[in-house]
Amino acid sequence: MKYYSYENFKNDTNSLIEKVRSSDFEGIVAIARGGLTLSHVMAEGLDIRQVQSIRTELYDKTDKRDKITLFAECDFKSAKKVLVVDDIADSGDTIKTVMKYLQNNFKDIEFSCATLFYKKTSIYEPDFWINEAEEWIEFFWEKDFIRSCNA
Amino acid sequence: MKYYSYENFKNDTNSLIEKVRSSDFEGIVAIARGGLTLSHVMAEGLDIRQVQSIRTELYDKTDKRDKITLFAECDFKSAKKVLVVDDIADSGDTIKTVMKYLQNNFKDIEFSCATLFYKKTSIYEPDFWINEAEEWIEFFWEKDFIRSCNA
Repeated sequence: MKYYSYENFKNDTNSLIEKVRSSDFEGIVAIARGGLTLSHVMAEGLDIRQVQSIRTELYDKTDKRDKITLFAECDFKSAKKVLVVDDIADSGDTIKTVMKYLQNNFKDIEFSCATLFYKKTSIYEPDFWINEAEEWIEFFWEKDFIRSCNA
Repeated sequence: MKYYSYENFKNDTNSLIEKVRSSDFEGIVAIARGGLTLSHVMAEGLDIRQVQSIRTELYDKTDKRDKITLFAECDFKSAKKVLVVDDIADSGDTIKTVMKYLQNNFKDIEFSCATLFYKKTSIYEPDFWINEAEEWIEFFWEKDFIRSCNA
């Protein structure tokens, strides 16, 4: 288990911002919850006002493959290039499902994906990523905020 | 101008989490962009998975009052108590518009509002807030991330 502090995040996200800047994205989609903080600060750094979130739920099916349900009502107005962000491409299932959904439903828009971490075993490799994840990452947004005693 | 660091945010948000915990909210709405990071960490601290965002745009009208447009497609499933979060109630225009929209469109849901800062001149006082804002706040998510040279 590796603690990922705000200082780590600040440095890595500034690198990620520099990596994607020349692509001139006009909108950002955060995969909630993991991508919310990243979407906020990247939107600030890239001066992008169109930020929206997509929420997913994973249902465990004992007899078949896990099923991911998307809760998304996106509106991209005139944007032609949109960046989808999440904290980590771990199994890659969620990101792959989200990218497929967006590409199928908004055929005029070019979607790219950016994460802070990428695990080599992920079924989806983001277009932009900063660190290879080799162990479990404990993000500051999970660790630094009080959970109730029975959580 | 006052710089609001991640450390300040961490302490204040933990206080805010304790303030709202007993209300047993089942969903969170972030007002983008300002409320995105707050929504993320509060959802972690309160163990709430239903997080979604609403985006607003302010159009300046020279001859009449500023007009705020909402970009929102919310889906609250079975949630009965939802918390709306933003960084600051400054003029209060945005929060008031968002709360009114949600209350009018989801009459079965009880909405409350939480912010980190509240300015006494705001036309809307959030149900929960931590600090009174007396000067311009420069949030770490605005300051710590690189903007392009011509931004």
